[in-house]
Amino acid sequence: MLNKFLKIIEVSEVEKILKDLFNDLYSNHKSENVELECANHRVLAENINATMDLPPFDRASKDGFAVHAPDTFGATEEESVILDLLEHIDAGQRPQKKIKPGYCSLINTGAPIPEGASGVVMVEYTETRGKKIEIYRPAAPGQFITKQGSDIKQGDRLLSKGTFITSDKIGALSAMGLKKIPVQEKIKVAIISTGKELVNSGQDLEYGQIYDVNSYSLRSAVIACGALPLWLGVVPDDYDGLSDIMKDAINQSDIVLTSGSTSAGTGDVLKDVIKDMGEVLVHGISVKPGKPTIVGKINEKIIIGLPGYPVAALMIFQIFLAPYIRILSGKAFNNSIKTVKYPLKERFFSSKGRLHYALVKIIDEQVYPIFKDSGAIAALAQAQGYIKIPKNVEILNEETEVEVYLFDGL
Amino acid sequence: MLNKFLKIIEVSEVEKILKDLFNDLYSNHKSENVELECANHRVLAENINATMDLPPFDRASKDGFAVHAPDTFGATEEESVILDLLEHIDAGQRPQKKIKPGYCSLINTGAPIPEGASGVVMVEYTETRGKKIEIYRPAAPGQFITKQGSDIKQGDRLLSKGTFITSDKIGALSAMGLKKIPVQEKIKVAIISTGKELVNSGQDLEYGQIYDVNSYSLRSAVIACGALPLWLGVVPDDYDGLSDIMKDAINQSDIVLTSGSTSAGTGDVLKDVIKDMGEVLVHGISVKPGKPTIVGKINEKIIIGLPGYPVAALMIFQIFLAPYIRILSGKAFNNSIKTVKYPLKERFFSSKGRLHYALVKIIDEQVYPIFKDSGAIAALAQAQGYIKIPKNVEILNEETEVEVYLFDGL
Repeated sequence: MLNKFLKIIEVSEVEKILKDLFNDLYSNHKSENVELECANHRVLAENINATMDLPPFDRASKDGFAVHAPDTFGATEEESVILDLLEHIDAGQRPQKKIKPGYCSLINTGAPIPEGASGVVMVEYTETRGKKIEIYRPAAPGQFITKQGSDIKQGDRLLSKGTFITSDKIGALSAMGLKKIPVQEKIKVAIISTGKELVNSGQDLEYGQIYDVNSYSLRSAVIACGALPLWLGVVPDDYDGLSDIMKDAINQSDIVLTSGSTSAGTGDVLKDVIKDMGEVLVHGISVKPGKPTIVGKINEKIIIGLPGYPVAALMIFQIFLAPYIRILSGKAFNNSIKTVKYPLKERFFSSKGRLHYALVKIIDEQVYPIFKDSGAIAALAQAQGYIKIPKNVEILNEETEVEVYLFDGL
Repeated sequence: MLNKFLKIIEVSEVEKILKDLFNDLYSNHKSENVELECANHRVLAENINATMDLPPFDRASKDGFAVHAPDTFGATEEESVILDLLEHIDAGQRPQKKIKPGYCSLINTGAPIPEGASGVVMVEYTETRGKKIEIYRPAAPGQFITKQGSDIKQGDRLLSKGTFITSDKIGALSAMGLKKIPVQEKIKVAIISTGKELVNSGQDLEYGQIYDVNSYSLRSAVIACGALPLWLGVVPDDYDGLSDIMKDAINQSDIVLTSGSTSAGTGDVLKDVIKDMGEVLVHGISVKPGKPTIVGKINEKIIIGLPGYPVAALMIFQIFLAPYIRILSGKAFNNSIKTVKYPLKERFFSSKGRLHYALVKIIDEQVYPIFKDSGAIAALAQAQGYIKIPKNVEILNEETEVEVYLFDGL
């Protein structure tokens, strides 16, 4: 007889083991500096304080005339005040002339307030007659002047470490003129497919071969979680070949995802490779599909041996790993799996004794199970999500309301 | 007096105008071929049919022995059947020998079934003694054989036009060995900042200048919506300069987003440029912030003149434009704005007569309004989202439950 699974363990226990592994990864999370243009959807690795006052100078918040405010007190449509125009201060320009009583300067929104000015009268309440400006309303002292530092003062906290950077935070960072932003490094995930029958897409198939699916689907899923895939492609599944590639993979990544070579068959060497280089923590989970999944650790790197069947590999990734990777990428909130609830259209028989994840599609607010095995590509093509059937439930009757976990966005 | 807004119009009317503009854009949506590796989160532009049977040959679904099934009928632990071993067929290999009655071949999961075999006995129910294989269980005809084409047949529909491609669909496409995938082109959005006082991040500021915010925040927001930014940076806001850049922008993009130069001040030329090259459809929306927004059309391209103030520019983009761009990018469902409901911590006074979008932060499940104007960067830094206050509401009292639209993921 061949060697069997170490021990099939429950989902809750696997989750505990994964949580510990990812906690270690989280506490060793390094940072890097990236261009401002690349910082969106990253996690800020340091507190950012304002490098300057904002605005950096007193500026006009309306188009109008900068005045010595007391000159305008009492001005009305009937009893206007007439001031002498000194200059036109456009945004971006340094004022050349000081405002003395009796004088004013035309000023645009965003332009610096000239020396001596204590208010701005909106252009709507003025009339220009050559160099003479008629003012119809008074300017209260400070009116339409945004004071230097009134938005934020140099040295004040702008953004805190741990902030998930979205377009609004990019705006705040760009206001400081920052080019390089310290962010947490992306988690690096090496992706390896094993299987002598596998061929990369675009090449010709020989008899007995099939195209590799897992390294493409997992690569997309890893990117959607905000991590960086390191794509090692199809590798041999013999002990020496797999050991060599594993050494490379753990040197270059935080997590190694393999698929294939996990079950108890004759060609299955992954478990031996992990055992010899590190530690096998899980070999066999009480779920369907995905029972032969391996979880291991080599030099503090997390090794996940996914089953070879595409449906099983992707489901185990999405259910057990994606949530942790999203947390490390700051995407826990906005990129989590969404669910909808609809009645089941057809009776569904589940497998005994294991938590079952079954692929489904939704048509007209009814849920149709997809009756294909975990090797089936058609199932992947048709599925919109999956339902969970607890291990003690064998039959879900028609019309049972089920919660569908949607693949959208994954 | 200077020229005023054309006419301040209601939000519902603006939405109708935008819907028509984006419908035209949608119906002219072109497609392109991209590498499989780049097809995730794109929209499939054609139906994809299976280019081959899957599996492409009869294959074993378990590790075991390929047998002439009738040979094994009646086999038990007590009364085993003994067969002669012909060969070992590994995955990816072409079988060399035909299974005649009395013979068997060792076969791995995924390997092609040899000619003459009609079932597979799992390795767990056998014992190997040199070239003699003891069989303890019968193989029903067809047992553990996945027939050629049983998953999907060549020519069958694999995926339909319009499918939003997620990692599971990448899996289905890779199974066919496809290298190039026809997808809808990304919507191209030109981004222009106008303002004589604006400087790109990383450069030195002179007196009176500030760093450009909008082209950075809008660029991030455009990417997050699944579109392609065309970043034209800070351009002069005089008529000739803006006309020239507008010609370039409409040639290279589907949508042109400008910011600044929209209000009724002396330096505001955008409206004239649009009027002379095409049509101004909206100039002034009954909202706060963002009242001076312009919507126009030049040669079937959508022109949006956003206000210069960063908060206003980003809010108008997120509220009025992002939903349509997400639909065009297939991201309507999974990337939409999320909301939460919590009580307001402090009384909030809204402005009369306009729908008001107010920035807020959330602390301990309570909503704090951010009392900063729409020019404020600190507001962008602190905000977690916004609330909507209808135009006929002037005061929201403490403890009022409000719905917060979250910036997460934008």
